[in-house]
Amino acid sequence: MIFRQEIEESLTLKFAHLAAERRKKGLPIISLGLGEPDFKVPEEIIEATVQILQTSSAGYSSPMGISSLREKIAFKLLSENNIPATANNILITPGAKQAFLLALMALLEPEDEIIVLNPSYVSFIPQICIAEPRAKITIIDVRKSDFSVPIDHISNLVSSATKILILNSPNNPAGYIFSKEELNKLFDLAIKYDFYIISDEIYEKLIFTHDPHLSVGSLESTVERVLTVNGFSKSHAMTGWRIGYLCFPQSLYQKLLKLQQHINTNTCTLIQLALDQAFYHDQSYLTVYNNKLASRAAHLTLTFKDLHPTRLILPKAGFFAFVNISHLNMDSNTFCGKLIEETGVATTPGVAFGSNWDDHFRISFATSDENLDKGLKLIRKFVSKFK
Amino acid sequence: MIFRQEIEESLTLKFAHLAAERRKKGLPIISLGLGEPDFKVPEEIIEATVQILQTSSAGYSSPMGISSLREKIAFKLLSENNIPATANNILITPGAKQAFLLALMALLEPEDEIIVLNPSYVSFIPQICIAEPRAKITIIDVRKSDFSVPIDHISNLVSSATKILILNSPNNPAGYIFSKEELNKLFDLAIKYDFYIISDEIYEKLIFTHDPHLSVGSLESTVERVLTVNGFSKSHAMTGWRIGYLCFPQSLYQKLLKLQQHINTNTCTLIQLALDQAFYHDQSYLTVYNNKLASRAAHLTLTFKDLHPTRLILPKAGFFAFVNISHLNMDSNTFCGKLIEETGVATTPGVAFGSNWDDHFRISFATSDENLDKGLKLIRKFVSKFK
Repeated sequence: MIFRQEIEESLTLKFAHLAAERRKKGLPIISLGLGEPDFKVPEEIIEATVQILQTSSAGYSSPMGISSLREKIAFKLLSENNIPATANNILITPGAKQAFLLALMALLEPEDEIIVLNPSYVSFIPQICIAEPRAKITIIDVRKSDFSVPIDHISNLVSSATKILILNSPNNPAGYIFSKEELNKLFDLAIKYDFYIISDEIYEKLIFTHDPHLSVGSLESTVERVLTVNGFSKSHAMTGWRIGYLCFPQSLYQKLLKLQQHINTNTCTLIQLALDQAFYHDQSYLTVYNNKLASRAAHLTLTFKDLHPTRLILPKAGFFAFVNISHLNMDSNTFCGKLIEETGVATTPGVAFGSNWDDHFRISFATSDENLDKGLKLIRKFVSKFK
Repeated sequence: MIFRQEIEESLTLKFAHLAAERRKKGLPIISLGLGEPDFKVPEEIIEATVQILQTSSAGYSSPMGISSLREKIAFKLLSENNIPATANNILITPGAKQAFLLALMALLEPEDEIIVLNPSYVSFIPQICIAEPRAKITIIDVRKSDFSVPIDHISNLVSSATKILILNSPNNPAGYIFSKEELNKLFDLAIKYDFYIISDEIYEKLIFTHDPHLSVGSLESTVERVLTVNGFSKSHAMTGWRIGYLCFPQSLYQKLLKLQQHINTNTCTLIQLALDQAFYHDQSYLTVYNNKLASRAAHLTLTFKDLHPTRLILPKAGFFAFVNISHLNMDSNTFCGKLIEETGVATTPGVAFGSNWDDHFRISFATSDENLDKGLKLIRKFVSKFK
């Protein structure tokens, strides 16, 4: 394949690696980098995995996913998200990231235009380039003032050449949530110009305000143009396990089946069987966790409110704060590089999420209150020098 | 991506699915289709996995693989295969299949020529088309008389446009093993014409004759032009777990790192930690298993010796027998279709492994002796009708 220059090393992983190297050398590190929930994988899932290990060979399984797990996921999408999914719409993948990639591979053809809203998850654009090196990528930035979506701007840019619009709400890195009005307008555009929407909803369970999560897929009566990506990494703390899924229209069945067969054979049978068995476990830990996230978000907001000239729009979901440092006159790589060098605090440069976001940096607050407190104090001290 | 017509539904999986459907309907099925070892995952690995589940969060891990597991794999390649690998040459992937795909993605560019020896594993050619839709695929068939490699024919076809030669020894579906002389000649061609070799050695532990397994990677003094693919599916019965690895030259490090980051984030941490912990488990079960395979292979040979007009070249490794049915005047899909329809015996049509092999069919003997016995009796009866 042609390696377009957009296929960069993931900056989130690069800074995580830098932090690990510092730690190895015995230097202090406060990691506010990666987005890994700081709660444990639910005990029911651990127990189910142990049981499967002791009773099943967990050999080859169906490429599309184990049917009873596909059924449970479809029912979850129907009952919680109002997405008209059946088991036939579900593909189970090694991580939501790969669900996203397979969707792109099944849809994108040379010269197709695809619209990405920035700031965006670090792998969206590289994955587009992997799926189809000759795709035409149109970047649209949300407004820096309030992270709102410039619908009119999008309306002006879409055309009959538009094949896909990528959405990610709740958003990483900016923590915003689409309003119902925004989603309706975007969906209307999709109908009018006949394009697909791929909606990454991996942060849906980590909302700590009263804003509701709305799935754009709920606006259709059968799954036709909206592909929904989700998984168990953020809601179940199963990050390293790699388990996610795609809800896709039937027209893509053959392509996705072939891709899955030739790329994965099947997604890890053991993990699928365990999730299937423990699917309806107690999820009250999410309420507890979201309360923690709300309190940390408040802490962040207070910190940056006083820390001129930085600016922070309160995140509503996820565990990231995306801080505006435009008045510091420093690019984000320099800022994050100096920050880790001088204080040991690892964060992620804004440019990782889009070239127009080199005046932001991302803080993960998926960490202990103590760690966050220490990190914020050091950031405050560091920023104060540049006032 | 462009879906070339070569990206077909995997016929092995399709026939396995047909068999499962028949079984659901309550019809008898004797599966001689898929290649899944009929021994259990080593107890040490199960125990290690349980322990990791109970003690570790198994969260995100290094994209290239957990370093101590990479070290152990490199040492295995060095000590067992004479491949000059270090941990830096190792990428751990969700299955050997994906190791193979990532190697192709890192290497292949538009118009590159790649040579595949047929009969070949069902996913090789589809994966080439996924990795680079504009690759030029040259197919060379091994000799039908003895599955020997037509080195002279290959010499005539390679040129400066040749980028990669794919090798798979021990071979699926034909069960042959390259001789030292063949490997030396192929490696000399690789030097002369400056191309890469991707060597799939997943069946190396399932050899039941006295033929030695030789890794073509052992012919280099540093890993430069040979990429070795292997995994734990066949040697550890961990088929459904999806864990494999690639040994690659350092020049590909950046490309593979980026591909892995944006496709997988990391390979399942839990499974890597368990394998790392139980890496040096007792492998005497392999001797026991290979003795079983030898006895089944002998049974197959005796069966087909008397079953004119079919012909079977004794497999030396793996658990597949590739039977010549050219004198039956029936294409392999028809043969396997009628066979499953009339007798309930599921096998795989030869055409799945190359268009010139439509006069063969594949029998998996990774099944109980009883099952194999029943299946062979039914095949004998079925074939006898066409004499």
